[in-house]
Amino acid sequence: MMNLNPSKLAMVPFVSVDNMMKLIHFIGLEQMLKEIAEYIEDDFRRWELFDKTPRVASHSAEGVIELMPTSDGEVYGFKYVNGHPKNMKEGLQTVTAFGLLADVGNGYPVLLSEMTILTALRTAATSAMVAKHLAPKGAKTLAMIGNGAQSEFQAFAMKAIVGVDKLRMYDIDPAATEKAMRNLKGFGMELVACKTPEEAIEGAQIITTCTADKQYATILTDNMVGAGVHINAIGGDCPGKTELHADILSRSDVFVEYPPQTRIEGEIQQMPEDFAVTEMWEVITGAKTGRTSESQITLFDGVGFAIEDFSALRYVRDKLKSSGFYEDLDMLADPDDPRDLFGMVQRAAG
Amino acid sequence: MMNLNPSKLAMVPFVSVDNMMKLIHFIGLEQMLKEIAEYIEDDFRRWELFDKTPRVASHSAEGVIELMPTSDGEVYGFKYVNGHPKNMKEGLQTVTAFGLLADVGNGYPVLLSEMTILTALRTAATSAMVAKHLAPKGAKTLAMIGNGAQSEFQAFAMKAIVGVDKLRMYDIDPAATEKAMRNLKGFGMELVACKTPEEAIEGAQIITTCTADKQYATILTDNMVGAGVHINAIGGDCPGKTELHADILSRSDVFVEYPPQTRIEGEIQQMPEDFAVTEMWEVITGAKTGRTSESQITLFDGVGFAIEDFSALRYVRDKLKSSGFYEDLDMLADPDDPRDLFGMVQRAAG
Repeated sequence: MMNLNPSKLAMVPFVSVDNMMKLIHFIGLEQMLKEIAEYIEDDFRRWELFDKTPRVASHSAEGVIELMPTSDGEVYGFKYVNGHPKNMKEGLQTVTAFGLLADVGNGYPVLLSEMTILTALRTAATSAMVAKHLAPKGAKTLAMIGNGAQSEFQAFAMKAIVGVDKLRMYDIDPAATEKAMRNLKGFGMELVACKTPEEAIEGAQIITTCTADKQYATILTDNMVGAGVHINAIGGDCPGKTELHADILSRSDVFVEYPPQTRIEGEIQQMPEDFAVTEMWEVITGAKTGRTSESQITLFDGVGFAIEDFSALRYVRDKLKSSGFYEDLDMLADPDDPRDLFGMVQRAAG
Repeated sequence: MMNLNPSKLAMVPFVSVDNMMKLIHFIGLEQMLKEIAEYIEDDFRRWELFDKTPRVASHSAEGVIELMPTSDGEVYGFKYVNGHPKNMKEGLQTVTAFGLLADVGNGYPVLLSEMTILTALRTAATSAMVAKHLAPKGAKTLAMIGNGAQSEFQAFAMKAIVGVDKLRMYDIDPAATEKAMRNLKGFGMELVACKTPEEAIEGAQIITTCTADKQYATILTDNMVGAGVHINAIGGDCPGKTELHADILSRSDVFVEYPPQTRIEGEIQQMPEDFAVTEMWEVITGAKTGRTSESQITLFDGVGFAIEDFSALRYVRDKLKSSGFYEDLDMLADPDDPRDLFGMVQRAAG
C-alpha cells in the first residue's frame, strides 16, 4: 500500500493574516520593523544582482491588479497586489496582497504569505531605513501628513529605526487623525494633532506625505518647506498621482528606488525625463553621497519596489521555524514517481 | 468587543492537491475532462475579449519560473508554473503549478488552486477539444508517442471527447509504456504496446507526440506520416524543443493557440516567421475552416496558453459549492475600518 499522505515536498508553508499578526506580537512590532529594515538594506546592498523585471499590470476601469516578480538568482519571489481606490467606500481594502518565494534551482514554492499587513511593514521599514541615511542627524520630530492605514506603521518604524519621538499629525479628515492618535497612544511618542499641514510641519525634521487621493494633488507647496528637512513622499505611487509641488522637487536632492519605475509612478513623473535622481542602493553601498549639508532638502520619492517585498518575504521565511506561526499547504502534487501523476490521482480514489 | 475572527471577505477558497483529486473522483475523470473542454471551447469562442499578456518568465541555468496572467474583463487569472527538466532525476516533478482567480472589479482573489494536476487535465482537454474539430470523422485509434505523466490524461480525454477506443503506445523507455498500460487497463480501451514509433502509428487516425526531451528532436520523420491523419504535437513547448521534422509541418495545415507564443515555443519555431498557421479560436467561431478533406494532414501545434488555465480555474470555481472540496484560507487582511489596518493588528495581541 502506497502512502497517500502528501509528502513533505508537496507542502508549502503558508502564513495567514492571523499568523502574520501573531508573528508581529511574538517578535514585537518595533523589533520586527528594525529587522525587516535590515533585510531590505542588505538587499539594496546587493541590488545589482537582482532580476529587476517591471511589474506586470492588468488595468481596468475600477483599478489595477499587478504581479511584481524578482529574483536574486537563488530565490525567486513575486507579490500579487491590487489597487482599487473605490473599494474603501464599499468597506473593502483599497490594497490587498499576498506573496510567494520559490527555489530557483527546482522551481518549488517555499513560502506563501499574506502581504496586506507585510506590505505595510515593508513600506514603513523602507521609509525609515532611507530616513536613517538621509534625515538630518538627531531628527526627533516627524510630521505625518495623511493618517490612513499606513501612518501608524510609519510612526513606529521612524521611532524604532531613526529615533523619532514626536509626531505632528494631519489629515484632511479629522477622524483619520483621531484614529491614528488613539492607536499610537501609550508607546512613548509625543503626539500632536494638527489642524493644517502648515501646523504639522512646524519644527519637523522629517515630513512624511502619505495621502490616498488618486490625482495630481499638492499636499506640500514650495513655501511650506524650509531648509534642512528630509521629505518622505510615499503617497504618490502610480501614474497620475502626486503629492508635492514641482518646485519642491527642483529645490531638493531626490532619492529613488528604481528610476524606470519611479519616473512613471513617483513624484518625479512631473519632471523632465532627465531630471537628476540618486538611486538609494548607491547611497547604501557608498558609491554615491546622501545628505551633504545641514541645510539641504533630501527627498525620498518612494513608490515601493519588488525587491522590498522580496526582502520582507525572506525575513518571514527565516522566522518560520523559530516562530512556528504557519501552516503547511498541500499545494504541489508530488507523486512517488514523477512520471506517474495519473497513478497518484487514481490511487486517491481508494 | 470586536470580532477577531476573519470576515468572509478575508477568506479565499483554496483547492489543495488532495481536494483536486477528490473533485476528480466526485465528478468522474471523463466527465470532468468533457466539462473542462466545454469551458475551454467557450473561452476560445470569446477569445478576442481576453487580455493576452505574454507569459513573464524568469530563466536560470536550471530551468524557468513563469507567471501566466490573463483577464476576460470580469475575472483575472494567473498561473505560476515552473519547468525544471533536471528535477525528475532528483525525484521531483519537472513541472509544478498553482493558479489564482480574482475579481477584476475589486481586486480580491476568489480562488487559489493547485494546478499541477489541473494543468494535466486542461492540456488533455484542449488536445481533445481541438481533435474533435480537426481529426478525421470516426477516428478511433490514437498513437501515443511518449508515455509520461501527461499520457494517461490525453488517452482519457480523447476517449471521452473524440470517441477513441484503441491506443497504440510507444516510449523510448519501455518502463514508461508499462506504467501507462497498467494505469489505463480496465477502462474499455484496447491497449497495444509498441516497440517503435513506426509500429505505434500504424492505422492511427490521431498521432499524439508528447515527449519530454528539452532539445530539437525528431520523433516523427516525414515518411512516417501518411495522408488523412491528425497530429496532436504537444511535447515541444519551449524554445529549443521540438518533436517533428520540418517537412511534416510543410505538408500539414497547422493550427495554433496564440501565434506570438507558438512561433517562439512550438514546432513552428523551425519555420520562417511568415509560415501560415490558423488560430484555433477562429475554427471554433466558424471564421476559418478546420479539416477540409479526408486526405489532409491537420496538425495542432499545442504549447499551452493562459486562457486554457483560466477556463480550468473557472470550472473549478464553479464546482466549489456543489462539491465542497475546498478550504477557506485566511489570506486577505480585512479590518472593519479599511483605514485601521494597524488597529486590527493591535487588537490581535489580546
